[in-house]
Amino acid sequence: MKPISIPTLPTFTDVQAAQARIQAHVQRTPAVEIAEINQRLKAEIVFKYENLQVTGSFKFRGALNGILSLSDRQRQNGVAAHSSGNHGLALAQVARQFNIPCTIVVPHNAPLKKRNKLEQSGAKIIFCEPTLAAREQALQAVVAATEATEIHSSNHPDIIAGAGSVALELLAEVPDLDAIVAPVGGGGLLSGVSLVAAAQETPVQVFGAEPMGADDARCSLQAGRIIRKPAQTVADGLRSALGELTFGIIRQKVTDILLVSDEDILANLRWFYRATGVMVEPSAAIALGAIARHSSRFVGRKVGVILSGGNVDADLF
Amino acid sequence: MKPISIPTLPTFTDVQAAQARIQAHVQRTPAVEIAEINQRLKAEIVFKYENLQVTGSFKFRGALNGILSLSDRQRQNGVAAHSSGNHGLALAQVARQFNIPCTIVVPHNAPLKKRNKLEQSGAKIIFCEPTLAAREQALQAVVAATEATEIHSSNHPDIIAGAGSVALELLAEVPDLDAIVAPVGGGGLLSGVSLVAAAQETPVQVFGAEPMGADDARCSLQAGRIIRKPAQTVADGLRSALGELTFGIIRQKVTDILLVSDEDILANLRWFYRATGVMVEPSAAIALGAIARHSSRFVGRKVGVILSGGNVDADLF
Repeated sequence: MKPISIPTLPTFTDVQAAQARIQAHVQRTPAVEIAEINQRLKAEIVFKYENLQVTGSFKFRGALNGILSLSDRQRQNGVAAHSSGNHGLALAQVARQFNIPCTIVVPHNAPLKKRNKLEQSGAKIIFCEPTLAAREQALQAVVAATEATEIHSSNHPDIIAGAGSVALELLAEVPDLDAIVAPVGGGGLLSGVSLVAAAQETPVQVFGAEPMGADDARCSLQAGRIIRKPAQTVADGLRSALGELTFGIIRQKVTDILLVSDEDILANLRWFYRATGVMVEPSAAIALGAIARHSSRFVGRKVGVILSGGNVDADLF
Repeated sequence: MKPISIPTLPTFTDVQAAQARIQAHVQRTPAVEIAEINQRLKAEIVFKYENLQVTGSFKFRGALNGILSLSDRQRQNGVAAHSSGNHGLALAQVARQFNIPCTIVVPHNAPLKKRNKLEQSGAKIIFCEPTLAAREQALQAVVAATEATEIHSSNHPDIIAGAGSVALELLAEVPDLDAIVAPVGGGGLLSGVSLVAAAQETPVQVFGAEPMGADDARCSLQAGRIIRKPAQTVADGLRSALGELTFGIIRQKVTDILLVSDEDILANLRWFYRATGVMVEPSAAIALGAIARHSSRFVGRKVGVILSGGNVDADLF
C-alpha cells in the first residue's frame, strides 16, 4: 500500500518569522481607501498596494524569505524557478542583491513587460512552451545541470510564509477588517494571508478571487482533493494550480472562493484605473472584481483587498 | 515712506510641529525606486508617491495642519479658499472630517476629474473665471459673507509647514539623499521641503521644477522680487504665483529652479506611466521631467522626487 504523504504545513509562527527576516528589505506598501469605490460598493474597502512592492508584486516577499533561508552551500549553487513573470522577477532581484546565481524558466507567452523586465534582471532566462509540463521539464533540466535549489512560486513553505507577511502589515495598520480578499492562482498568497487572518483574536474572513477560466482552486475545494484542469484567463499570474501545501491550508482556513469572469476582471481594472490613476495587473484587479460581482457578501463591511501586482502591458487597452 | 513689510517666515521647527499635529491622519506614502528609470538617468531616483496621499495629493498635509491650528470660533465660521483643485479637495476633505463649513472657489477650466471630485466633496463649490483676479474677488465675497477663515493654497505658514512634512518622511526613510526635486507653482511644497532639506546635518540640495510657460518663480528669483506674469501650461496645479512667504523661503534655501516644457512634462508622464503603471498629474511629472532635461546635474547622485499628485483626467492621452 502506498503511504499517504502528510506534508508539514507552514503556520502563523512561520509568517511572523518571515516578516522579521525580510522586513528590512521590503517596501512597506500603503493601505488606501478610495471614496468613489466605497460609495459605489457600499462597503469600506482598503487596498493594499503590493503593485508598489519592489519588482512590482508581493512575490518579492516570498522570494526574499526563500533566499534568506538558504544555507551557504545552497546559495553557492544558486536558485531556479519557473514563473509566468512576477515570481521570476522577484527571485532574480533578490538573487542579484545577494549575489546568487539564478535561472528562471518562462513561458514564451508571458506579458511583454514581464519578459522585458526579466531579460534585464540579471538572471539567466530560459523560454519554454506555455504548459505546466513544459515548464516543469525545463526546470528539472536546469536543476540537474546546476544543482540549483528550486524555489517554487507558490507551493513552498518559505514562499507561503513570506507572502503572508502582507497580511501582517495590513492588519497592523487596519486591525478592524471584517474580511480580506486575495487572488488565487497557485495559492501562495491566499494561503499565507489566511494563516494570518485565522490567527487574529477575532478571526478575519478570507476570500479567494479566482478566474472562471482557471477555477481549479474552487473545484479542488469542492472535490476535497487537488483537481488539475486547463487554465484560460487574461489574468496571466493566476494560471498556475494549487499544490499540496497551499491546498492543505486553503481548505482549512479560507471562507470561500469567488469566481470572476475575464470581462469583469478587465472592467474592474479599468474602473480602478479611472478612480486612482493606478493601473494594476488583471491578476490583482480580480479581487476588486470579486467584491463588485459578489457585492451582497461585502455590503456594510470593512474589507482588505490585496492588489497583488502591477506588471501589466501599458497598452492593454 | 511706505514701511517695508517683513513677514515672519515659518521655520523647520514649524514643520516638525506640523508633522506631530497631522501624522495620525495622513497616509505615510511609499518611497520607491524604479530600476528602468535609474538605468536611463544614471542616477538613483527615489519617488515619494504623494499621489497616493488622501485626496490624491500632498495638499492634504497642509490642509490638515491649517484646520487643526484654528481656534474653536474660527472652526465655527468655517474655511474658504480658491483652488484649481487639489488644495480645494484637501480642504474639503479635512473640513468634512472635522465637521467644519467649507467653501471652495474653482476656475471653471479645472480638470474634469478635480471638478467632479470637488462637487462630491461636501464643500460648497463656486465656479469662477480662470484668472487670479477673478478667483481672489470671488473668494473675498465669500469671506465677507460668511466670516470664514481663508486658507491660502500656498502662501500661508501652516500650509508651508504641513507640506514640508513630506520631506521629513522622505528623509526619515532615505537619509542619504543628495538632492530633492519638487514642483513649484505657488511654492508651498517647494518652500516647505527646502526648510527641511536645509536643516539636515548635511544639507540636501533642493531644486524646483517649473513649467516654461509659468516661470514666475525663476523670474522672481532672478529679479530679487516677486514677478507676476500670465501662466500657460498643461500643469494645471502650477499656474499660481509665489507669495511673499514662499518667495522669502525659496530665495534663501532653494538651489535652483529648473524649467521644463509642456512637451517634456507629458513625455515624462507617459514614461513614468509605462514604467510603473501609475499615472501622475502633469504637475507631478514635471519633477521627473526636470531631471531628464537637466540630467547632467543629477548623474551619479541620489535624488528624491516628490510626486505631488495624481488627480489627472484618465483620458489625457
